[in-house]
Amino acid sequence: MIQAIRYEPGTLWLLDQRRLPAEEAWVACSSVEQVARAIESMVVRGAPAIGIAAAYGVALAARRLAQGVGDAPVQGAAEGAVDRAIRRLADTRPTAVNLHWALARMEERYRRERDAGAGLGELAQALEAEARAIQEEDLAMCRRMAEYGADLLPEGARVLTHCNTGALATGGHGTALGVIRTAWSRGRLRHVWVDETRPVLQGARLTAWELLKEGIPHTLIVDGAAASLMRAGRVDAVLVGADRIAANGDTANKIGTYMLAVLARHHGIPFYVVAPWSTVDPALPSGAHIPIEERNPQEVAGYGEARWAPEASPVANPAFDVTPAELITAIITDRGVLRPPYEEGIARLAAEAGRATSAAPERRG
Amino acid sequence: MIQAIRYEPGTLWLLDQRRLPAEEAWVACSSVEQVARAIESMVVRGAPAIGIAAAYGVALAARRLAQGVGDAPVQGAAEGAVDRAIRRLADTRPTAVNLHWALARMEERYRRERDAGAGLGELAQALEAEARAIQEEDLAMCRRMAEYGADLLPEGARVLTHCNTGALATGGHGTALGVIRTAWSRGRLRHVWVDETRPVLQGARLTAWELLKEGIPHTLIVDGAAASLMRAGRVDAVLVGADRIAANGDTANKIGTYMLAVLARHHGIPFYVVAPWSTVDPALPSGAHIPIEERNPQEVAGYGEARWAPEASPVANPAFDVTPAELITAIITDRGVLRPPYEEGIARLAAEAGRATSAAPERRG
Repeated sequence: MIQAIRYEPGTLWLLDQRRLPAEEAWVACSSVEQVARAIESMVVRGAPAIGIAAAYGVALAARRLAQGVGDAPVQGAAEGAVDRAIRRLADTRPTAVNLHWALARMEERYRRERDAGAGLGELAQALEAEARAIQEEDLAMCRRMAEYGADLLPEGARVLTHCNTGALATGGHGTALGVIRTAWSRGRLRHVWVDETRPVLQGARLTAWELLKEGIPHTLIVDGAAASLMRAGRVDAVLVGADRIAANGDTANKIGTYMLAVLARHHGIPFYVVAPWSTVDPALPSGAHIPIEERNPQEVAGYGEARWAPEASPVANPAFDVTPAELITAIITDRGVLRPPYEEGIARLAAEAGRATSAAPERRG
Repeated sequence: MIQAIRYEPGTLWLLDQRRLPAEEAWVACSSVEQVARAIESMVVRGAPAIGIAAAYGVALAARRLAQGVGDAPVQGAAEGAVDRAIRRLADTRPTAVNLHWALARMEERYRRERDAGAGLGELAQALEAEARAIQEEDLAMCRRMAEYGADLLPEGARVLTHCNTGALATGGHGTALGVIRTAWSRGRLRHVWVDETRPVLQGARLTAWELLKEGIPHTLIVDGAAASLMRAGRVDAVLVGADRIAANGDTANKIGTYMLAVLARHHGIPFYVVAPWSTVDPALPSGAHIPIEERNPQEVAGYGEARWAPEASPVANPAFDVTPAELITAIITDRGVLRPPYEEGIARLAAEAGRATSAAPERRG
């Protein structure tokens, strides 16, 4: 199984996704700053994977404190250090909400341990356990989503996907690519069209690499070629991930996703978003409120060492776009498949989650 | 003025478009084979420019013959050489019809000279003059189309374009980019969004370079970002060129064009095709009959020296797609602006062209 995030106390190992598929190199992070920079520079990317890496980043901060002073009580400087770690990590990428969800969960665990009078050593262990739980739960959620999603695909499906939503982007298995994995293992899948996904080429580099590893038949295309494949009747479904889903179902995802949604609608092809519930931000009324990260123009002006655009030409490089809910056939979450109107389903799940959250302390008490 | 094709008797100079914008290097061709390879390897590209380069290639063949044997009559080996030159050049790129149009025109001139008893030296001069006329007429046609097209744009227009349809792609000025040039010179244009146009990046490399040279405000984007700009109301019109237009108006153009046409329709934005009449193939009933060139997979797997896709991943690399006539707001030709239903307008112009062609020998006689 591909797993791109590995933790041992004091060190977070990240498979360097910038260097795939040419080489499988690992980056070792032993400080919060190193984790934050790994997220910013896309050593690790994919909304769920960013959340997991950030959670381990908080655990690393606590582990460092514990190594300095042993099992002293969590007070003063320690508290400031954990808060600073969370703030630094929260600032790395603005669009994905899983990051904030994971950090909020780490913060809650931190406060609980502190209030229970835990020592720094205990705190570090607790936060490491919490981060590990986030990673393991993410994998379990991916498998659940994959089952739901595979049920929706026709026999012998030829699907098109964008960016990388696989094991590399999650705790393992993947979201949209997880559905593809499961559909393939069930013998339901015929072919995968892989958008290269400019500018960072996660499709060409990462999704193709994962599909090769699994032996799943696929073909790489430029993003502009998806439309003519649809017109030729060679695509049965589009499967994408999500970075943030608003209360009305509007979905932010990798730039180019909205294009696919419009094309799918025009050609009468189902368009599925696959994302864990932690991607949903019920506090956000619509996609108009989702902040869209503008990344370095050099990503568009070239790739790696190569630069092909004229130096003086201005570049726009929004990393994400927003697909309006009305173009989404279904949102496949670990808590079930949502269908339009999404407001209702999301409000219902949010209410259940609220009850679960408020019930949890009682169960623990 | 940017002019990428220059001829002096015996040598065709081509501005190497593969090396722009990094350097302005010229390739000298003195044989048909060199011209054919320059077209295949995209030293020169763009449907009208390919036609012009091929016309000069035929002239080169005649010039070589004349240099060998002086002003001997056109017979035997000479005839075979010109025929072989035309066949070799016709095989370079399958989709663009201007190539075949230009070669047919060169062949007609050749037969006329031969039948009139011209010597090889006279033949070479005549074919050089014919190729030069094709280039000059193309520039004049571009200017005419540009006037028609600029009339269609609103004041302060923000337009989106794909690939390169500029001076580099034509005898000068350009087709879609010619409209942009003229609209800018008239003060009607506010901004140009430039699709980078994967895989060969003609937008990022060539269109951005031309716009910089002219001082026209522009922003480079990845192809997948066009959709969200349209949704944000930041695009007033889409302007593209064409490689072949069928009798019903279906249009083959650079891969990604059909995507833009669907997106423009979805967002209620006019979608204009700009192409000289020589791009229209009235013998072809619809776009389903247009051959689509499949190019080297390496163009998608990487760029230049860089390779980013896994070696073993299959690639599809259709160089063109077909936009159905119903998505095209207007086709802007040098002979006027065509509106749906295109069958009628194209049939009318074809009939006029037929009369002009059959009338021409009489006028000459």
